[in-house]
Amino acid sequence: MKMPGRVFLVGAGPGDPDLLTIKAHRLIAQANVIVYDRLVSAEILGLASRTSRMIAVGKEPKKHTVPQEQINEILICEARAGQMTVRLKGGDPFIFGRGSEEALALRAEGIPCEVVPGITAAQGCAANTGVPLTHRGLATSVRYITGHCKQDQALCFDWQGLADPETTLVVYMGVANIEEIAGRLISAGRLPATPVLAINNGTTRKERRIVADLHEIADATRRADFAGPVLFIIGEVVLLYAQSEICPVVQAALLMEAAE
Amino acid sequence: MKMPGRVFLVGAGPGDPDLLTIKAHRLIAQANVIVYDRLVSAEILGLASRTSRMIAVGKEPKKHTVPQEQINEILICEARAGQMTVRLKGGDPFIFGRGSEEALALRAEGIPCEVVPGITAAQGCAANTGVPLTHRGLATSVRYITGHCKQDQALCFDWQGLADPETTLVVYMGVANIEEIAGRLISAGRLPATPVLAINNGTTRKERRIVADLHEIADATRRADFAGPVLFIIGEVVLLYAQSEICPVVQAALLMEAAE
Repeated sequence: MKMPGRVFLVGAGPGDPDLLTIKAHRLIAQANVIVYDRLVSAEILGLASRTSRMIAVGKEPKKHTVPQEQINEILICEARAGQMTVRLKGGDPFIFGRGSEEALALRAEGIPCEVVPGITAAQGCAANTGVPLTHRGLATSVRYITGHCKQDQALCFDWQGLADPETTLVVYMGVANIEEIAGRLISAGRLPATPVLAINNGTTRKERRIVADLHEIADATRRADFAGPVLFIIGEVVLLYAQSEICPVVQAALLMEAAE
Repeated sequence: MKMPGRVFLVGAGPGDPDLLTIKAHRLIAQANVIVYDRLVSAEILGLASRTSRMIAVGKEPKKHTVPQEQINEILICEARAGQMTVRLKGGDPFIFGRGSEEALALRAEGIPCEVVPGITAAQGCAANTGVPLTHRGLATSVRYITGHCKQDQALCFDWQGLADPETTLVVYMGVANIEEIAGRLISAGRLPATPVLAINNGTTRKERRIVADLHEIADATRRADFAGPVLFIIGEVVLLYAQSEICPVVQAALLMEAAE
C-alpha cells in the first residue's frame, strides 16, 4: 500500500500575511497541493511554490462553491495520491472553520492530519484597532459566535447568557442578521448604549471601521454598505477605541509617524 | 525633543516557537530591548539578537515579580530613551494579558505603540489535541474566561450563562479554582458528565493531558499534580478527543508515523 500524504489544516489568519505563523508560512511554501477558501488573500497564496497545484473551493456566503463533502473528498484523494496537502482556511481552522469536520473525515480514512492554528479575525481586529478582547474592569471574558445561519434558519442562542455585560461578544459573519442580534441582546438586558465596533476586511489594506451604539449598529452597518467580511466587537472594551481616537497626544504621535 | 522609540506589545503564542507570527518573529530579532514574562519560553527568547537587552518582569501566579505600574514605567522609560522595545507576552496581549493596560499607559504618554496578536493557548491546545473550539452540532460558540482571581477574591461570573451547553468554555489559569468552577457550572445546569480536557504546558515538549467528566475534573487535576500553566477545555467538543484516541485506524497511522 502506498504511504498516504499528510494533510495540514492550516489557519491563514485574518488577512495580513505578516500574521501567518512561522509554521503556516513554511507549510504553504512546501505544499504540493493547496486547497483554499475565498477568504485567503492573494498575497498569502503568492507564498506557495510555483510548482504547487492550487485548488479553489471558495466558500462565499450563501453560496458554497464546492460542497463540504466534496472538499473532504478532494483532501482524501490528494492525500491518497501521496501529495503533501495544505488545506488553507481564513482565520483559525478550529474556530468556525469547519476544520474539525475535515479532520474527522480524514481520520476516518486513516489519513494523517495535523492542525495548525491561525490568528482569528477577532484577534487581528483587536490588535489593529487597539480594542482589547478582555480588560480588567471592562470585560472578564470574551465570547465568539457566528451570526450566520444555514439556509435562513432562525438564530438559536442563549440570549440571556450572550447579554452578559462583563463579556466582550464577537460576532463573525453577522452582517445579514445584525439587526436581529442587536435587538435580541437589548431585549435580554444588554444596554442599548453598549458600544459596538464593526470592522470590514480587518487587517487588510481595505480595512474599514465604524463605531455605533448597540441600538444603532444595524442602521450604521446598512449605511456603510460593506463589501467583504465584517466582524462585530460588542462591549465596553470598545470605549478604549474611542479613547485612543480622541486623545490629542496620540493623534500628534500618529501624525509625526505619518510624516516620517 | 528626541523622537521616542516605538513599543510593540507582542504575543509570543502558546509556547512552540513555530507558532509565533512572522511579524512577532521579526520584531523579536530586531528589538533593542525585550521586556518579557515568565511564560515566554527560552526557545523564543533565543530568537533575540545577541545585542538586545533582556528584561524579565516574570509574572508568577500570586507573585508578581514586578508590579504592573513598574512594567509600564520600564516601557515608557525605554521608549523615551529611543529604544525599539518589544514587550513580549505569552499568548495574545489582548486576551487576559493586561496588554491593554500597558497600551493605555503608553498612549497617555504619547508613545507610539503597536499590538501584534499571538496564538492564544486555547487555539494552540485545540490544534494539538484535535479538539475543535467550535463544531457544528456540538458547540456554536466558544468563550474564554480566567479562573484566577486577584488576592483570593471570590470568582464573579454569570454562571447561568457559562453553563450554556452549546458553548465551549475555556478556562485559563484555573487550577486553583477548578473545584469551585466545576461545582458552580453543575449547579447552574451544565451536565456533570460534560467532558473536560486539561492541558498542561500546551504545545511544548512538556505537554501533558488528562480527560475527565466535569464532576471528576477537580479530583483528576489534583492527582495529576501539574507544574506550569494548565488550560481547561469544557464541552461536548472534547468527545472528539476521545474519538481520535480510540479510533484504531488513527492509532495505526500514528504508529506508522512514529516508526518512520
